[in-house]
Amino acid sequence: MWQQLPRLVQDHIINKNINVYVINAYEVARNAGMGGRINTVMQVCFFALANVLPREEAIAQIKKYIRKTYGKKGEDIVQMNIKAVDAALDHLHQVTIPNAIDENAGDIHNPIPDTAPAFIRDVLGKMMARQGEDIPVSALPCDGTYPSGTAKWEKRNVAQEVPVWDEDVCVQCGKCVLVCPHAVIRSKVYEEAALTNAPASFKSAPAKDLDWKKTNLKFTIQVAAEDCTGCGICVDVCPAKNKSQPKLKAINMAPQLPIREQERENWDYFLSIANPDRNTLKLNKISHQQMQEPLFEFSGACAGCGETPYIKLATQLFGDRMVVANATGCSSIYGGNLPTTPWTHNQEGRGPAWSNSLFEDNAEFGLGFRVSIDKQAEFATELVKSLASDIGETLATGILTAQQKDEADIFEQRERVAILKHRLGELSNSNLDESMQAKVTMLQSVADYLVKKSVWIIGGDGWAYDIGYGGLDHVLASGRNVNILVMDTEVYSNTGGQASKATPRAAVAKFASGGKPSPKKDLGLMAMTYGNVYVASVAMGAKNEHSIKAFLEAEAYEGVSLIIAYSHCIAHGINMTTAMSHQQELVESGRWLLYRYHPDLVGEGKNPLQLDMRSPKLPVERTMYQENRFKMLARSKPDAAKKLLKQAQNDVNTRWQMYQYLAARQLEIGNGNGHSKGNIEKETTVN
Amino acid sequence: MWQQLPRLVQDHIINKNINVYVINAYEVARNAGMGGRINTVMQVCFFALANVLPREEAIAQIKKYIRKTYGKKGEDIVQMNIKAVDAALDHLHQVTIPNAIDENAGDIHNPIPDTAPAFIRDVLGKMMARQGEDIPVSALPCDGTYPSGTAKWEKRNVAQEVPVWDEDVCVQCGKCVLVCPHAVIRSKVYEEAALTNAPASFKSAPAKDLDWKKTNLKFTIQVAAEDCTGCGICVDVCPAKNKSQPKLKAINMAPQLPIREQERENWDYFLSIANPDRNTLKLNKISHQQMQEPLFEFSGACAGCGETPYIKLATQLFGDRMVVANATGCSSIYGGNLPTTPWTHNQEGRGPAWSNSLFEDNAEFGLGFRVSIDKQAEFATELVKSLASDIGETLATGILTAQQKDEADIFEQRERVAILKHRLGELSNSNLDESMQAKVTMLQSVADYLVKKSVWIIGGDGWAYDIGYGGLDHVLASGRNVNILVMDTEVYSNTGGQASKATPRAAVAKFASGGKPSPKKDLGLMAMTYGNVYVASVAMGAKNEHSIKAFLEAEAYEGVSLIIAYSHCIAHGINMTTAMSHQQELVESGRWLLYRYHPDLVGEGKNPLQLDMRSPKLPVERTMYQENRFKMLARSKPDAAKKLLKQAQNDVNTRWQMYQYLAARQLEIGNGNGHSKGNIEKETTVN
Repeated sequence: MWQQLPRLVQDHIINKNINVYVINAYEVARNAGMGGRINTVMQVCFFALANVLPREEAIAQIKKYIRKTYGKKGEDIVQMNIKAVDAALDHLHQVTIPNAIDENAGDIHNPIPDTAPAFIRDVLGKMMARQGEDIPVSALPCDGTYPSGTAKWEKRNVAQEVPVWDEDVCVQCGKCVLVCPHAVIRSKVYEEAALTNAPASFKSAPAKDLDWKKTNLKFTIQVAAEDCTGCGICVDVCPAKNKSQPKLKAINMAPQLPIREQERENWDYFLSIANPDRNTLKLNKISHQQMQEPLFEFSGACAGCGETPYIKLATQLFGDRMVVANATGCSSIYGGNLPTTPWTHNQEGRGPAWSNSLFEDNAEFGLGFRVSIDKQAEFATELVKSLASDIGETLATGILTAQQKDEADIFEQRERVAILKHRLGELSNSNLDESMQAKVTMLQSVADYLVKKSVWIIGGDGWAYDIGYGGLDHVLASGRNVNILVMDTEVYSNTGGQASKATPRAAVAKFASGGKPSPKKDLGLMAMTYGNVYVASVAMGAKNEHSIKAFLEAEAYEGVSLIIAYSHCIAHGINMTTAMSHQQELVESGRWLLYRYHPDLVGEGKNPLQLDMRSPKLPVERTMYQENRFKMLARSKPDAAKKLLKQAQNDVNTRWQMYQYLAARQLEIGNGNGHSKGNIEKETTVN
Repeated sequence: MWQQLPRLVQDHIINKNINVYVINAYEVARNAGMGGRINTVMQVCFFALANVLPREEAIAQIKKYIRKTYGKKGEDIVQMNIKAVDAALDHLHQVTIPNAIDENAGDIHNPIPDTAPAFIRDVLGKMMARQGEDIPVSALPCDGTYPSGTAKWEKRNVAQEVPVWDEDVCVQCGKCVLVCPHAVIRSKVYEEAALTNAPASFKSAPAKDLDWKKTNLKFTIQVAAEDCTGCGICVDVCPAKNKSQPKLKAINMAPQLPIREQERENWDYFLSIANPDRNTLKLNKISHQQMQEPLFEFSGACAGCGETPYIKLATQLFGDRMVVANATGCSSIYGGNLPTTPWTHNQEGRGPAWSNSLFEDNAEFGLGFRVSIDKQAEFATELVKSLASDIGETLATGILTAQQKDEADIFEQRERVAILKHRLGELSNSNLDESMQAKVTMLQSVADYLVKKSVWIIGGDGWAYDIGYGGLDHVLASGRNVNILVMDTEVYSNTGGQASKATPRAAVAKFASGGKPSPKKDLGLMAMTYGNVYVASVAMGAKNEHSIKAFLEAEAYEGVSLIIAYSHCIAHGINMTTAMSHQQELVESGRWLLYRYHPDLVGEGKNPLQLDMRSPKLPVERTMYQENRFKMLARSKPDAAKKLLKQAQNDVNTRWQMYQYLAARQLEIGNGNGHSKGNIEKETTVN
């Protein structure tokens, strides 16, 4: 222990006569059946050492308050905590302090390796080492921009156990890659030659997908063990069974420490293998889609977070052209937890441009992105037309008529714009007259807007249903081409679990301590009343492909799109490891609906609303009482809980009936020319 | 003319050598067929006199811009304006200025009569006479409160013509009283004895209603001729025909000047007759209900305003216990156009307490009223319990168990509280111990909260659909007992006619100059998705009794109530005189729906939604093209107008289909104990 401490810390301890104690709190908690929850253990240690109360009295008080705090959650949880209390002191050890500093003790080290870019190492690294006060103002970007892709340099090594891949059992479905909240599980297919210099422990298997099998490609799933939080969701969703060892799957948890070094090497090697060509991937298959590189990696979100898989998915699909307005809330914190950010970029340097705005104006903030991007694109288009003969008519026409309907189109437009920029460089040194030269200069500054951008407005239910709803509604009515992602945890997760309008009836939350008496606000239905908004309600754990389909449709729709994504949360009082499976039961009980409302279908003579699920068959009681937020009310106020439960079941029944009607009704077709987008101002498009 | 001018004005004119011209612009406009629109006439006079352009050129330019400005509205409107231009100069006369001030000329007079209360005469009167700079700060209320009932002292005499009642033709239905936007038409029934000292020209007739006929009561309709704006809506809605003169009804327009003095005397006499007992009125009959005294009179709203009749109605029904939060917009301007306000009080001094708040927080502002009133009522209840033996157990029990379900109940509670306050006065001089004395003092300050208050949150569509919608939605979800009145003019009326989310598809407005391309936001449907909000959509002109019923139900519902009231507006480009009749066609075409959604019906096993109209039978085209906001698009962009018209018809059809489903579906019944109000915090009631 002593040898681990830096020189400066040793010096303080010796000179200030500080007593130092250590405890393996995780071991105590684990043995008591409490998993990684060490708060009770650490509380005992504090009172044992701080002498604010006689030790016996302190322990008695702790036990009393355990009953008070956890009583509603059940006797088993109380007993676990009592057991942890009793075991804690046996594991508390005093460290013997030598008289002098260890001559081998080092300085407090910058946690960023020397291989990192200078700004990350010298500025962000210093902040992490708590030496931020030594950074000169001149080292900081004066325009407020910050580099992305920085969280990956901050190896946190927080997981006691990490998933380990079994290449022989794996069916290569990609589900573990999809659901991983921290983007630490990755898959790749590649030529066998890429294995030539692989480390000895690097695993691979022949690719099973027919597209890849026929060219004898290899397949690997690699875990970033140092970035994993150990939530175990990947193991829960793995559908592959190990026939010889029935308790094991194709991915299994194992202690991190023994394999840390080896997996660091494997991870680096994995990253060095080229990504498959994005344009060849079949995005309707998870195994294919999950080969797309995520541009959101290693966030500081809770282990098992239900929100981050959706953000990661969006960055896989559209990250190289995304512009993101992120409302305050969990996602703004784990998305920008200074000094690092998980938002990152690909090898070409393309990645999401991200900024956080307030709870109360984020939708408007994102709409502003769209308005300014459209205006700059319009200006660039005018300049291309005006300079067409100098640029070359073929190139100009190619740029101006590009549809950019899919990724291959966008790739080609990028190539054209690269040629354009080269040509503009030549023109700026030519003998064009002054007014044309001015146009060349202006076009150089806006040429990038000729390539399609994907505008995303992101936040939680506290933002979307409550504080920012006024602006959200205005954006919904705007008709502009923006994509709104609401990660609905049904509670203010980040500020301590206050009820929001998204909180379901009967759930206990702050400000709803007797169980919320009114039903959950139906944001999707309210958005559908506009008629020209694409609306999808998804739950990744219930139907993986449905989420992907909704994201693709939403982004492609040339109007406002709203995706409401069920996001489980530690605030629900659930087993986070099985949270994705729980989402499935949620849908089967009708508590969460899967649907897509596509306005363009009206123009095709179809009903715009598609219900993407069967009729609910499970009683809501069953799924509700798997969550402590509901269960605790049944213990503390059984009569109220019973009444609310019945109402909650009625809510589900009535709502399902309504949605069935909406999905079945015959609509009249507008004008035969398809559905009007209803944009107040005409969209500017580069075509 | 010269004799009319005050001494100070004559002095300025003479000493500054000012030229003075007069024109009877109303006569010129009327002769040109333009009714009361004098802007063109006055513009001609300005250019004729100001010499900024040669007169001929100025006239030519005016005519050119008349074509440009009004061309879209049709050739007939252009021709009317041209005719007015040509006639204007013939009617412009120069006033001969004498060399000296007329010896009989008076001072600028305070427009408020001496009979008015001192504050109104000396402070508000000075402001009206533009002598506000002479008012000392000490004359103004230091807490910001202002007396109500002040607009009635400001006789504006703006109407060229006013309605005159024909007592022989009248069927005594009360419709003219109901629709009058300025509360200048009143009805009363009374004993014949009350006529003893009536002026010679005071009219009356035997009461026709059976309830009143059997006791030989007399009936009068009286017009406040000096406060009328001359809109003529009363004449349009009058159902009684004069059989001998088919062009006349039971109320007819006639020049105001000849009858001004006589009607002033009649009005004052009318006010001196006692109001009938409120508790004997049958509120489901307009003729009865309109005997209720309005506590909103003589506002500065436009002639024919579609909003004010709703406000007036609310004050008739609940005015003596109303607390009003009024959003910015037309209603905040005509509701508080300093120095006077039309909000007033009855003879007992009871009337609405009113304040204006911002567009962006008015719903929250009103919710705050409810929260604080409930808290004070709760405190008062605790004090009554605690002091019961001193107050007297019978009185205390009476106060604490009062239901206050209707007006008679509330009247009785007021009586009890009056006795309580008297008793508290006695107790404060008794030998109670110090802590009990403190309670007596506290109860004196909150005793009035033991009587039920009616909280109203009022505004237009710019507030409710747009800028204040975030807060409105939060209040809708709160479950608290507040009443929200949205006066929906479908456009930002007060700031110049910008499109709001309430603007219907195809209407031309600022920011929607090509016709609004997206459908009107369905605020009522969005509110109904909560399930526990009372929602009514009304149009007074389409069905008078329906509006009254909705107001009564909304106020009685112990949760959030939302009334969306169609309000015609000069911004629609309609004939304001027939605006109430136009509302009927609006409903018959399905452009506006009449319905009531009553959550309590669920507990009775009924569908909460009732459609209070027949299936739409008129094409929307017919009603739309009676409004210039739609018609002008058909002229300027006929193809776009045609497409939008078709979509607008589809909007109506689809919406009607949806509402029919909602009104017909079978709902499951909650818990057999009636519907949960879904209040986050339990309502405090005094029982």
